[in-house]
Amino acid sequence: MRAASAAGTGLALATQATAARTDDGAAALLEIFAKRQSVRRYKSDPVPDEHVRMILDAGRRAPTCMNQQPWKFLVIRDKEKIARMRQRLIEVATKPIDAKLQQQTNVSEQDLEPRKKAIATVEGYLSAPVYVVVLTDNQCLCGLEYTKHDGPLAAGYLMLAARALGYGTVYLTDSIPEAVAREVWNIPDRYRRVCITPIGVPDGWPPPKPKKKLEELVAYESL
Amino acid sequence: MRAASAAGTGLALATQATAARTDDGAAALLEIFAKRQSVRRYKSDPVPDEHVRMILDAGRRAPTCMNQQPWKFLVIRDKEKIARMRQRLIEVATKPIDAKLQQQTNVSEQDLEPRKKAIATVEGYLSAPVYVVVLTDNQCLCGLEYTKHDGPLAAGYLMLAARALGYGTVYLTDSIPEAVAREVWNIPDRYRRVCITPIGVPDGWPPPKPKKKLEELVAYESL
Repeated sequence: MRAASAAGTGLALATQATAARTDDGAAALLEIFAKRQSVRRYKSDPVPDEHVRMILDAGRRAPTCMNQQPWKFLVIRDKEKIARMRQRLIEVATKPIDAKLQQQTNVSEQDLEPRKKAIATVEGYLSAPVYVVVLTDNQCLCGLEYTKHDGPLAAGYLMLAARALGYGTVYLTDSIPEAVAREVWNIPDRYRRVCITPIGVPDGWPPPKPKKKLEELVAYESL
Repeated sequence: MRAASAAGTGLALATQATAARTDDGAAALLEIFAKRQSVRRYKSDPVPDEHVRMILDAGRRAPTCMNQQPWKFLVIRDKEKIARMRQRLIEVATKPIDAKLQQQTNVSEQDLEPRKKAIATVEGYLSAPVYVVVLTDNQCLCGLEYTKHDGPLAAGYLMLAARALGYGTVYLTDSIPEAVAREVWNIPDRYRRVCITPIGVPDGWPPPKPKKKLEELVAYESL
């Protein structure tokens, strides 16, 4: 990093470090952390193979217990497979709503709103061209007590890499229930599902969410 | 990023993206992922307050269930507190070794090697000027089924930020047993201990660990 740009990005203090150095990556990286947001609707623009590879390559660099690297990244790009997931999730989301509506004698336009909203949410999540299912291998030497860390770590890494390349992601767990993911995308019991993230060009970046101040989250020396 | 430097860092393909753009952060960030390694011995050089703040500030940007941000980052810099942890961990590590040695009639220099090694390991981990205990709040609206993701995600973020600023980290779980951490650093039951990481200038960067090839970790369309 050039001194001028360091100062311009609030990293001027970094030059006071006695031993650590602020290299080219620091300012840009620190911005990426703040810029990654959960994206819930995507454009259909494709993600080039090389970008998918770079994103996954970041995931495999995460800290991992005893260097076991227990990950499997299942990449789904097949439009038919994505459409099947969308259809199945719409069924799951609308079933309880429809059951309730069927008990009503009169159904108003307003009564149908929750149904429309549920469908729109699913369609948003399932609008991306690429999905990565982050899995950990139950056959790993390190049990779940350890792999439970490795899974989210790799997911976090690859989502940051996606953001650095200009793509949106969202860390989905309940929004694609594990049982549905296993059924529709054939995930064997050998693997534990950590999360699923779409990767794609956002259909607009969402406004930043309000966040707690750092002071609320940090305790110095004692709690 | 200027086109010339993009090509130089293997990101030339990024320019083929139809909609995503490779900004200043991409190449630098993607390098940081690969450069972060587990560091097990540190120099005593201080970490400036501003760097600690920047590192923690990255942690709080991690994905989080329902925007709950259930984190608490306990920062320990008090030399006396660090020394007490070192002493306690040496006791824990040497106790079973000493019990075994006391049953022997003759104790050779070689018999003492495991004891020396255990002490050196603890001293390495406890040689940094700063420790961050990453905690999640059990009172969070989202239960452990969700906060179990949030914890490692924040830890991964802040460790990457530390690396971007030139510092080493290591994701410690069993090396500082949770019960010992609670006892020595007074961590209330309200918080779940995710991990502890030292932050400091490495006493030499360790050689890179062998890693699985990306191809071993990725499956396209089906497992």
